[in-house]
Amino acid sequence: MVQTATEQTTMEKLVSLCKRRGFVFQSSEIYGGINGFWDYGPYGVTLRRAVEQLWWSEIVEDRDNVVGLDSSVICHPEVWRASGHIEKFFDLMVDCTDCKHRHRLDQMEDPEVCPDCGSRNLTAPREFNLMMKTYVGPIFDEEHAAYLRAETCQPIFVDFDLVRIASRQKLPFGIAQVGKAFRNEVTPRYFTFRSREFVQMEMEFFCRDNDAMEWFEYWREQRWRYYTDLLKIPSDKLRIHEHEQLAHYAKAAVDIEFQFPFGWGEMEGVHHRGTYDLSRHEEYSGKDMKYFDQEANERFHPTVIETSCGLDRMCLAILANGYYEDLAETKKEGKEQDVRVVLRLAPAIAPVQVAVLPLSKKLTENAEPLYHKLRKRFRAEYDDGGSIGKRYRRQDEIGTPLCVTVDFETLEDNAVTVRDRDEMTQERVGLDALDSYLADRIFS
Amino acid sequence: MVQTATEQTTMEKLVSLCKRRGFVFQSSEIYGGINGFWDYGPYGVTLRRAVEQLWWSEIVEDRDNVVGLDSSVICHPEVWRASGHIEKFFDLMVDCTDCKHRHRLDQMEDPEVCPDCGSRNLTAPREFNLMMKTYVGPIFDEEHAAYLRAETCQPIFVDFDLVRIASRQKLPFGIAQVGKAFRNEVTPRYFTFRSREFVQMEMEFFCRDNDAMEWFEYWREQRWRYYTDLLKIPSDKLRIHEHEQLAHYAKAAVDIEFQFPFGWGEMEGVHHRGTYDLSRHEEYSGKDMKYFDQEANERFHPTVIETSCGLDRMCLAILANGYYEDLAETKKEGKEQDVRVVLRLAPAIAPVQVAVLPLSKKLTENAEPLYHKLRKRFRAEYDDGGSIGKRYRRQDEIGTPLCVTVDFETLEDNAVTVRDRDEMTQERVGLDALDSYLADRIFS
Repeated sequence: MVQTATEQTTMEKLVSLCKRRGFVFQSSEIYGGINGFWDYGPYGVTLRRAVEQLWWSEIVEDRDNVVGLDSSVICHPEVWRASGHIEKFFDLMVDCTDCKHRHRLDQMEDPEVCPDCGSRNLTAPREFNLMMKTYVGPIFDEEHAAYLRAETCQPIFVDFDLVRIASRQKLPFGIAQVGKAFRNEVTPRYFTFRSREFVQMEMEFFCRDNDAMEWFEYWREQRWRYYTDLLKIPSDKLRIHEHEQLAHYAKAAVDIEFQFPFGWGEMEGVHHRGTYDLSRHEEYSGKDMKYFDQEANERFHPTVIETSCGLDRMCLAILANGYYEDLAETKKEGKEQDVRVVLRLAPAIAPVQVAVLPLSKKLTENAEPLYHKLRKRFRAEYDDGGSIGKRYRRQDEIGTPLCVTVDFETLEDNAVTVRDRDEMTQERVGLDALDSYLADRIFS
Repeated sequence: MVQTATEQTTMEKLVSLCKRRGFVFQSSEIYGGINGFWDYGPYGVTLRRAVEQLWWSEIVEDRDNVVGLDSSVICHPEVWRASGHIEKFFDLMVDCTDCKHRHRLDQMEDPEVCPDCGSRNLTAPREFNLMMKTYVGPIFDEEHAAYLRAETCQPIFVDFDLVRIASRQKLPFGIAQVGKAFRNEVTPRYFTFRSREFVQMEMEFFCRDNDAMEWFEYWREQRWRYYTDLLKIPSDKLRIHEHEQLAHYAKAAVDIEFQFPFGWGEMEGVHHRGTYDLSRHEEYSGKDMKYFDQEANERFHPTVIETSCGLDRMCLAILANGYYEDLAETKKEGKEQDVRVVLRLAPAIAPVQVAVLPLSKKLTENAEPLYHKLRKRFRAEYDDGGSIGKRYRRQDEIGTPLCVTVDFETLEDNAVTVRDRDEMTQERVGLDALDSYLADRIFS
């Protein structure tokens, strides 16, 4: 079954491509895997690094009023008491006393019957905290328990004053960080969408309460444009979901959602968090977390606007958005056309931006120096194995926007054929003009 | 007391500078800290990202035969059984039954007396595993225990075949990854040198056994040159330590050590690991981990040469190597000279490469556009607060190699003063030539 360019892929096809081409594997596959954990292979790492760097440039490097932080995954457990995670970050679970299975209450169709064995001998619902627990130091008791961070934003609040002093920032300003977070999800699902270990990219913007709603609108707009303008995701696959119920301290909260193959799913949240977090950490630490405004001669807790997204979800959206199957010419016997799988990735984030493909191994002397020249400026790959058709298909599957083919004519006309992934058109380009031709197509 | 340029700094001075200027803070400081965990502030993050990217370019991006991986921190516990960590990665600990304190046997001067209360009522030594343990899923028992990875290399062995197939690499080739590792050190110490959470950068190079010693020498040489040529650490602060005792499967092992203020310390290990890891994972998983050489028509376990370094240690070495105190002119009353703290960081990795400093706020209109132009190419900072002398000192402390001062003469001669951090010389450079002048100094 061939999908048209407007149809979505299925998760099965995406997972299969990701494994086949080395984007994402199941963690510990040789040991049967471990549910909710994923490894990124060579192309996956490159994609992820490119997307992360795009976010970091956009949020931190290109702005004067946002600075970076990189805090430890394990921090003082009091951080999670202050944040409310120890008290409130849980699912309700029920045990079956017959088959001994454990179930999430909100996922049981009939909350009085075990979904596995049908028994009605169930325990009362119990709170199951979603933070992963460990012990620090040589004694394993509650006093020495610590948690893997459930979100990257709390250490930003905890370090607010240290960062402010060292960076000499004045309101309004932001602190951003990228890093791992861990949640002991009872039912991880949808590939890398809901996993137990993931990378968050969060930015907390501190401002005066009077200006907070204006900044909220500003960041909502900025983050929307990030997806449409930088990641090139069409706006009809994106939507804004406004939260109907807000936390008592919040004035506004929206999610940016993407239309995944399994339905709409959150990719990013933009949240007005009020002064809640700084006030809580002041209460629990006994340290003054206020900001002193010299000009106004005022001390107050800044209001916070947060932008929070998941790098794994973002990459999944990019892959799902890029996946297409169409028809291409084939030389297979008895066929004129065959299904082609292609990843239409934006050139800025494609793991390979240019592939150099000599038509024959006799052209190595000409093709290799060209490859070495191009890789200084672009993410490039060299492939001289198999038929040119097969090599094009392979580059299509990993999302390479442009293939440069060196043929015997190159020796005469000093030109190469540049083949476009999406249009499958081929253009003859002189070697003199190649660098700027490629740069125009990749960086614009 | 003024140190000369050849004397080393002390750890106390380094820790103080790191906190003051936002390189590194204690994690959870407002809660009294948590021993063995550290947060990187704005300049620390920038330094760390630059050093990490330098390693990644050098090891992965600039080579055709090394590919990347990014595996999960938590993987299947069987990985650590196969690697030997569950059985052998421990310290021996002794409990005092009187004062209830726990001690590391190898750190007790008298192993029969409690170092805290002097009691001789001690338990027999017990094994204390250094891996951090957690539980995955809703049931907290031994069957659901998992470990935070103690090193980043094991998942490389576990994923060897998946990566090889997806990347279509043939021997010899390498797989590299950067990521967090966790060790429940009983006595974390020396600032970020021995902490409980740290970033490793490891590369496993798979080759034929016949060629392994040649590759070992190659990588030892490559890694040495990384420190001297790229990080610009003088070779008299580095040394090679050859392991006298080798693991039974290893043919060679060396450490590259740096002369830290507290003494010589390991920064990197280059190890011949034989075929041990792949064989062990084959034994424990039941999956064939051999490589098939088509040309030779042979199946065998590749021999592994490993390069393994710690990003945090590397950054600590860079900071310690760069820290100097010297004398500089001052306008303080009654003084002609004063102590100047300066971080002599290599321009390629300095968090700020160029600072733009208008002599007066009246020059904003001229200085700001220049800053915006320069920041497109260099990591740049704009500072218009306080006396120019104070601003120079601040840039010296964060390691900025070049300051560009815009003064009233600039309006007439279209030139600026470029001040050199190390020589404290000032040179007048025309605005036309500034970009290439700076690039020469920063990228060469």
